Amino acid sequence: MIRQLIEKIQKTKAPICVGLDPMLDYIPEHVLSKALEEFGETLEGAAEAIWQYNKEIIDHVYDLIPSVKPQIAMYEQFGIEGLQAYVKTVNYCQEKGLLVIGDAKRGDIGSTSSAYATAHIGKVQVGSNRFTAFGTDFLTINPYLGTDGVKPFVDVCKEEDKGLFVLVKTSNPSSGEFQDRLIDGRPLYEMVAEKVVEWGAQSMDGTYSNVGAVVGATYPEMSRILRKLMPNTYFLVPGYGAQGGTAEDLKPCFNEDGLGAVVNSSRGIIAAYKQDKYKKYGAEHFGEASRQAVIDMVTDINRVL
Amino acid sequence: MIRQLIEKIQKTKAPICVGLDPMLDYIPEHVLSKALEEFGETLEGAAEAIWQYNKEIIDHVYDLIPSVKPQIAMYEQFGIEGLQAYVKTVNYCQEKGLLVIGDAKRGDIGSTSSAYATAHIGKVQVGSNRFTAFGTDFLTINPYLGTDGVKPFVDVCKEEDKGLFVLVKTSNPSSGEFQDRLIDGRPLYEMVAEKVVEWGAQSMDGTYSNVGAVVGATYPEMSRILRKLMPNTYFLVPGYGAQGGTAEDLKPCFNEDGLGAVVNSSRGIIAAYKQDKYKKYGAEHFGEASRQAVIDMVTDINRVL
Repeated sequence: MIRQLIEKIQKTKAPICVGLDPMLDYIPEHVLSKALEEFGETLEGAAEAIWQYNKEIIDHVYDLIPSVKPQIAMYEQFGIEGLQAYVKTVNYCQEKGLLVIGDAKRGDIGSTSSAYATAHIGKVQVGSNRFTAFGTDFLTINPYLGTDGVKPFVDVCKEEDKGLFVLVKTSNPSSGEFQDRLIDGRPLYEMVAEKVVEWGAQSMDGTYSNVGAVVGATYPEMSRILRKLMPNTYFLVPGYGAQGGTAEDLKPCFNEDGLGAVVNSSRGIIAAYKQDKYKKYGAEHFGEASRQAVIDMVTDINRVL
Repeated sequence: MIRQLIEKIQKTKAPICVGLDPMLDYIPEHVLSKALEEFGETLEGAAEAIWQYNKEIIDHVYDLIPSVKPQIAMYEQFGIEGLQAYVKTVNYCQEKGLLVIGDAKRGDIGSTSSAYATAHIGKVQVGSNRFTAFGTDFLTINPYLGTDGVKPFVDVCKEEDKGLFVLVKTSNPSSGEFQDRLIDGRPLYEMVAEKVVEWGAQSMDGTYSNVGAVVGATYPEMSRILRKLMPNTYFLVPGYGAQGGTAEDLKPCFNEDGLGAVVNSSRGIIAAYKQDKYKKYGAEHFGEASRQAVIDMVTDINRVL
C-alpha cells in the first residue's frame, strides 16, 4: 500500500494529505442552511451538511493530491448519521482515485485491536460473505499497549495490502508529557520508533514499510533524529499550518530522495475561504479557495525539498 | 457519576461490570441463524444477532449488577449496522437501570478529543438542538498524548456528570513494553497514575473522582502500588477470569472500605454456556448460564474482600 501512496505522491508532486475534519462552524452558511432546511436541525441534517461540504472540497482538489485524511472523531460526534457521512466520504474519495488515511488512533489488547483492524482496514465475515465496514487504505493507531496491541493491525496490513501510521511523537503542546520522558537516557518516543521499525519489517512494500509513523511538524529537532532512526518508515506529519509548523520545520521529516513524509493540513485547506489570504473567493466559492490553498501548500513544501 | 456507580455497587454488593463484547462465535446457533435468516448473511444480520444475544444476557443479569462495559470495537467491525447495535445496547442497559462504561479507549489532540468526548459522553449541538450520539455514562481513554488530549474529556465529565477510566496499566501480556519502562527510576505507568490524580482532582464526586483508571488484574504487585498512589481514584479492572486474573489478584485493587474497583468480565460471563461448568444449561439457556456465572463471580470476589 505504501508503494501506491508513493506513486501517487510522485505523480502529483504533492507529498500531502488534506485533512477532512469538518466542524459545523467551518461549513459555509449556504451549505449548512440548505442541509438543515432539508433534514431539519438534526443529526441527519448535520451529516448531510458535512457530506456536501466534503464533496465540494474533494471535487476541487482531488486531481492535485494523492491522499486525504478524514478524522473520524469529527464524524463520530454526530453518531450513526455522522459515521454514515464518514463512509460516504471515504468511498467518494476512493472513487476519485485518492488514498484514504483513516485517522482513528485505535489501539487496545490483541483481540480488540483485531476487531478494530477488521473494522477499518480489513473485512468482516458474516456466514459465507465478507464485508468492508469502514474500508480506508491506511489507519492511524496508538502504541500505548505494546506489541500485542499492534500486531493484529500489522497482520491485516499484510493480508489486505493496507498501511498504518503509529503514533510516535505527536504535534500537540503536551505531547512531551509522557513521550519525551527519558528512559535510560533516551526519550520514550525513540523507543516507540524502534518498535515501529521492528513491526514494519514484517510488512515491507518496496523500500518503505506499510507501517508508518505519526511525527508532528512542530518538533523539527526530534523529527531529524526520528528520520535517522526510521530510514524506511513513512511519516505522516500533522501540525503544518494552523498548528504552527512551517515548511522549514518539515524538511527533517523527508529523506534525501525527497520521499518519506506525507504532510497533513486540515483547517488550512478545508476552511481556507475564512482566511484573509483567500477571502476574495467568498464563502460561495469555498472549494476554489481550498484548491488554491492546496496549490500554495504544495509550492511551499516543494520549495524546501 | 462515580457516586452513582458506588451506590449501585453497594446496593447490588457486586463490584463488577459485565463486558458486552460479542463475537459472532460466542452467539448460540439458534440466535445467530434466526437473525441471519431474517436479514440474510449481511452486516444487518450480524448486528441483529448481536443485539438479540446482548438483550437476552442483559435480561438475565441486570438485577444483579451495577454496570456493563460494551467494547465498541466488537460493534465497529460490523460498520454502521454494528454501531446501531451498540447504541441499542447502551440505551437498553440504561433503561434497565445499568450504568454503561463505553470501552472505546479514545484519545487525540485537544480539538479531536473534544469531538470524541462529545460523541461518547457529551451532547452535540445542531442549530438550536442538542443530541446524544453514543451516550454512555463512562468512557475509557488513552493518555499517550498527555494533558491537552485528556482535558476535553475531563471538561465534559464536569459539565455532564459523567466518568472516565484512563489507561494506566493494561492487562495484556506486552503492556510492560512501554508502560513499565523506568523514568528516573519509576515506571511510566506510575507517572501516568500521578497525572490521573491531577486530572481527577478537577472532577471529584464525593470521596472518589469521576476520573478513574484502568488497572489490569494480571499484575497484582503493580495494583498494590497504584492503589496507594491513587487513593481516591476508582479502578476499572480488566483481566479477571478468561485473561488469567484471580480473585486474590484483585484484592490489591480495592481500598480498605471495600470500594475503589469495578472488575470486568466479558467472555467468562457472556459465553459462560460454553464452559464445562455451565454446560448443563445448554446453548438454548445461555442467559441463565450467564446469570449463574455472574453469581459465581460476585461470590468469588466478595470472598476476598
